[in-house]
Amino acid sequence: MYTGSLQVLIDELGRLPGVGPKSAQRMAFHLLKVAPEDALRLSSAIVAVKERTTLCPRCCNVAEGDECSVCADPRRDASTICVVEDPRDIVAVEKTGEFQGRYHVLQGALNPIEGVGPEQLRIRELLGRIDAEGIAEVILCTNPNLEGEATAMYLARLLKPLGVRTTRIASGLPVGGDLEYADELTLGRALQGRHDIDA
Amino acid sequence: MYTGSLQVLIDELGRLPGVGPKSAQRMAFHLLKVAPEDALRLSSAIVAVKERTTLCPRCCNVAEGDECSVCADPRRDASTICVVEDPRDIVAVEKTGEFQGRYHVLQGALNPIEGVGPEQLRIRELLGRIDAEGIAEVILCTNPNLEGEATAMYLARLLKPLGVRTTRIASGLPVGGDLEYADELTLGRALQGRHDIDA
Repeated sequence: MYTGSLQVLIDELGRLPGVGPKSAQRMAFHLLKVAPEDALRLSSAIVAVKERTTLCPRCCNVAEGDECSVCADPRRDASTICVVEDPRDIVAVEKTGEFQGRYHVLQGALNPIEGVGPEQLRIRELLGRIDAEGIAEVILCTNPNLEGEATAMYLARLLKPLGVRTTRIASGLPVGGDLEYADELTLGRALQGRHDIDA
Repeated sequence: MYTGSLQVLIDELGRLPGVGPKSAQRMAFHLLKVAPEDALRLSSAIVAVKERTTLCPRCCNVAEGDECSVCADPRRDASTICVVEDPRDIVAVEKTGEFQGRYHVLQGALNPIEGVGPEQLRIRELLGRIDAEGIAEVILCTNPNLEGEATAMYLARLLKPLGVRTTRIASGLPVGGDLEYADELTLGRALQGRHDIDA
């Protein structure tokens, strides 16, 4: 539809997740319009990420250099591991300010339909850390959906024989949520997970 | 929040139109995940567009090489010009298959509030074409909104003394539209623009 290089750019932008043909076109025309240095900053940023970013050899988080910023921080509690599916989940946990330990990124969750079995996840690396790092507790912080729950269950079974305390994050109603609009599974979990209150 | 180069990429993607922080993050992680050659195709496409794309010296459409693909096509009727605001509008008109002439891209519409006056648009270039190319008709195909209408009116006044036939695309109800849901301005225009039917 457009001249060669413009159509190529529209096609490439359209491969990004959540970008349809119209958005890709809008983005391409935006890049066409802006000053060359502004557009080239984006292309350089892509090159830089592909060249510089690696996986942290300890926790499989995104890293630049020898290890990720969490593992490199000496103030973190080295005896607790929070297991997440994705590096983005680390940012979510960090924002809570409730966790001072280190992480382990599985790089996905068990999903037999999409061909993701234990071999595709960073499970061996996790098991290797328990003894090597003298881990006292593993918090299973995978998503509270089908795949995440199955993954947590699978990991709990593997971790039990190693004698490490294994915990799972709580499911329940979101803070500020509304009982009336809660689905029955969530409300059921909230009831199961009830705890005494000190009054 | 993330390691250096990843955060830079998220920030740069977030500058694209319609891309919020969450989408930028999702795109960045997608680029992080895909094979290097797939990510680098996007960065090269950006570089290529900035290096190769120019404005067509005749009609100010996006061009690669000496002139745009429409102006370079000898089958086009060289005596009719369709005036549009944006190169994307050319694609929309081309899709109709109703126009065989050439285009002129204003690169915007009059918008005093945003500081777009006649000097910022490719109006001088349009006027220069009328005599030089022996133009018989100019179709004003700017958007049927406030800015587009003002631009069409302004151009019509400039073109009148030049003795060239100047037309404006019709406003009315969209095909497949519903009278009940039409706004009163559109319906009013549709009534004003009524024409006899041969039955």
